[in-house]
Amino acid sequence: MAGTNGPAAVDDADAAAPAVILVDPQLGENIGMVARAMLNCGLTDLRLVRPRDGWPNPKALSASSGAVAVIEGARLFETTEEAIADLNRVYATTARTRDMTKAILTPRGAAADMRALVAAGGRPGLIYGKESKGLNNDDVALADAIIQVPLNPAFSSLNLAQAVLVTGYEWYQSAADAPQAQLALPKATRPASNEELVGLFEHLEDELDACGFLRVKEKRPTMVRNLRNIFHRAALTEQEVRTLRGVVAGLTRHRPR
Amino acid sequence: MAGTNGPAAVDDADAAAPAVILVDPQLGENIGMVARAMLNCGLTDLRLVRPRDGWPNPKALSASSGAVAVIEGARLFETTEEAIADLNRVYATTARTRDMTKAILTPRGAAADMRALVAAGGRPGLIYGKESKGLNNDDVALADAIIQVPLNPAFSSLNLAQAVLVTGYEWYQSAADAPQAQLALPKATRPASNEELVGLFEHLEDELDACGFLRVKEKRPTMVRNLRNIFHRAALTEQEVRTLRGVVAGLTRHRPR
Repeated sequence: MAGTNGPAAVDDADAAAPAVILVDPQLGENIGMVARAMLNCGLTDLRLVRPRDGWPNPKALSASSGAVAVIEGARLFETTEEAIADLNRVYATTARTRDMTKAILTPRGAAADMRALVAAGGRPGLIYGKESKGLNNDDVALADAIIQVPLNPAFSSLNLAQAVLVTGYEWYQSAADAPQAQLALPKATRPASNEELVGLFEHLEDELDACGFLRVKEKRPTMVRNLRNIFHRAALTEQEVRTLRGVVAGLTRHRPR
Repeated sequence: MAGTNGPAAVDDADAAAPAVILVDPQLGENIGMVARAMLNCGLTDLRLVRPRDGWPNPKALSASSGAVAVIEGARLFETTEEAIADLNRVYATTARTRDMTKAILTPRGAAADMRALVAAGGRPGLIYGKESKGLNNDDVALADAIIQVPLNPAFSSLNLAQAVLVTGYEWYQSAADAPQAQLALPKATRPASNEELVGLFEHLEDELDACGFLRVKEKRPTMVRNLRNIFHRAALTEQEVRTLRGVVAGLTRHRPR
């Protein structure tokens, strides 16, 4: 996944995107990896509550893999309350259930919830606890809702940057308008037309008739259909149709007529 | 997100889940973090093609945070072709577009595709390239489809374990039957019944009538409705209703009748 992180990244970020609040983060490297994951997802507002090793932290900068603006824009707070004071709805990400009455959302459910909040003019925030222990109950109690990631129940603990990535990823997907599937095409070609496909099919079938491959009359329709299906599924380009016709021509060049 | 990774994790893993193939991985730490992300998502079949620092690698084990079975079960291969030989459909995860004709799927689209393959008895695999450069074009050409993660276009490069997590996460979500939102409740309580809620409302409104808060007759219906809405939205438990009735009683105890 290397090679596409550019300097203009922050320009594409989303001003309404959720703030990320790290409470008692321990390692600078982890803060850096969080910054990278945030910027991957268009998040830029990083808030640090009592980072153990102080701030600024050069290890955070180097681990951010270029998410410099997020690191340099990070703000320090003494308490979680101060860090979330301007936010309208706050989500605590935790793998453990707590003995308290609070809505539990998946990352996908939380993303929809945050989009609705933003549409209403509000600003959401995501709180994450320290690497070793997660959030304490007092911090969870400050949140409006809990986010739990549906994962392998016997091994559901994510590292800090992974937890930020999953929630940020769902935030990004909830707006992304990318189709779930598309076809990459080299610039010089285009999908084959149906006429071109039929031309290929008939060329191939003529040759298969000629060589006797399709000689059993009652089986011919099924065999032809199966062959056509193969090439239909391949979603051929115009160039590939020409290539395949060349293949057929090449394979049959020396056959006696 | 700490504290929930247990030793029984592999028992809950899914035998039909996709294999993860790392081609030319560089750092043992990254292989360990991949193993952790895999097990988070119920994936256990790790295949390594030419790991730079050899195998086994103690740094991988320690970075796996307990995903020991994935690390110890990892298999070594000389070539990508050998590593994918038994698989039926292979997806190359890459952030860069390639000048080749191939289906491009999002992680979500790929998860649906893999579920369909597994339902038909096939076995999918996910290929990831080296940390510094990603996959080379020959390895991408071996794949049936490309996975691209929709992310900040100016900063879309994920680290290796993050790329594995996002694809594995979508695989897991595509089967997970967790509702997108639910309510966490302490064991000793239950949601309030409507009768209990109405009891609270009437208690409160009686007191508000008594103190004159609701004295303007034409505004009363709207004010009552707004108050009731607040408590409806809070999705109160039976315990909380009793607490709130105690609050109302407490606040009004010394009022002259």
